[in-house]
Amino acid sequence: MGRKSDAAERLVTAMASLVHHRGYMAVGVDDVCKAAGVKKGSFYHFFASKRELMLAAIERQGQMGKEVLVGAAFANDPPPLKRIERLLETASRLESSNKTRGGHVLGCPFGNLAAELGGSEPALTRRVDESLRKFSESIRDALREAKRRGDVPRSLDVDKTTDAILAYFEGVMLLAKMRNDPALIRRLAPLAVQLATQPKP
Amino acid sequence: MGRKSDAAERLVTAMASLVHHRGYMAVGVDDVCKAAGVKKGSFYHFFASKRELMLAAIERQGQMGKEVLVGAAFANDPPPLKRIERLLETASRLESSNKTRGGHVLGCPFGNLAAELGGSEPALTRRVDESLRKFSESIRDALREAKRRGDVPRSLDVDKTTDAILAYFEGVMLLAKMRNDPALIRRLAPLAVQLATQPKP
Repeated sequence: MGRKSDAAERLVTAMASLVHHRGYMAVGVDDVCKAAGVKKGSFYHFFASKRELMLAAIERQGQMGKEVLVGAAFANDPPPLKRIERLLETASRLESSNKTRGGHVLGCPFGNLAAELGGSEPALTRRVDESLRKFSESIRDALREAKRRGDVPRSLDVDKTTDAILAYFEGVMLLAKMRNDPALIRRLAPLAVQLATQPKP
Repeated sequence: MGRKSDAAERLVTAMASLVHHRGYMAVGVDDVCKAAGVKKGSFYHFFASKRELMLAAIERQGQMGKEVLVGAAFANDPPPLKRIERLLETASRLESSNKTRGGHVLGCPFGNLAAELGGSEPALTRRVDESLRKFSESIRDALREAKRRGDVPRSLDVDKTTDAILAYFEGVMLLAKMRNDPALIRRLAPLAVQLATQPKP
């Protein structure tokens, strides 16, 4: 059992990394097997298809995103709006390290998939949406707390603002990938909370 | 000459549309030739590679984006910040029509490409960046005018805010694609200008 589940584990890790670097359509089952050191015959013992493996990889990346990004945002218990800014600052650090190691900013793995696949792969896009909704709970919680503390207007529409900040997060990651510039994320991070603090005229 | 340039023209149009629907890696030269009604032998008479054709398609989409989105934003000469909101409202209308016709919100063709390809296709990503920079001149001009009119703080960093609003635009388009929800763009459109109007505490 040990070796079998190791192989499945390695396939998930390899898939997540390859797709983050190259995109979903550019990665074949052969590529993943080679990267994971798993024979192609074994692949289909664990996963019915490349799509099934990708679903597991999205799940894995969702857990990692939560641990790394949300974990860093909450470290030392900063005020709620600061936590939102921290999500982007942490992403900037991760992308700096991606660029140092491999030459490229990779962007948000979820945003990349949704942009590449959309309606062509509804099962994957739905799973990506679910993962980002879970991730955005950290934004929603911060906004609710900010409201209780009076840091944002009482009239703030928390659901709409959560979507706006999630969109901003995704767009900033995309621009940083397009320009291969991790510092852009840090530069644009402080503006995120303006989506929450402005009383509409 | 007429028929030859017609064929090149049809290839560019078909490529732009197919890639907008399916992504770059999912579209092969055969697919484009079939959609354009052009023989594969002729393809290489006009374009050295799929990449070359894509460069022409990006150029074309840049012109169309400028005509359609920026054109609609300026119609009836609204105040500058309203023009920024209009860019998103027009995108919402376009995506509603995409969904009605084909079942799916397609997202920004430039954002999609950058997210899918990034560092794997530097020539394409660079061209996408150039196209979006041209598009974002409409945002920059609006911010400059808003500053002259006193609609935004005098201290506003126009370059940074242009990037922030472009990022927001791209992120909102991405979320709408992910959720196949064109109304989300309209709902989030009014928040774009908050990235410009808030004096930092």
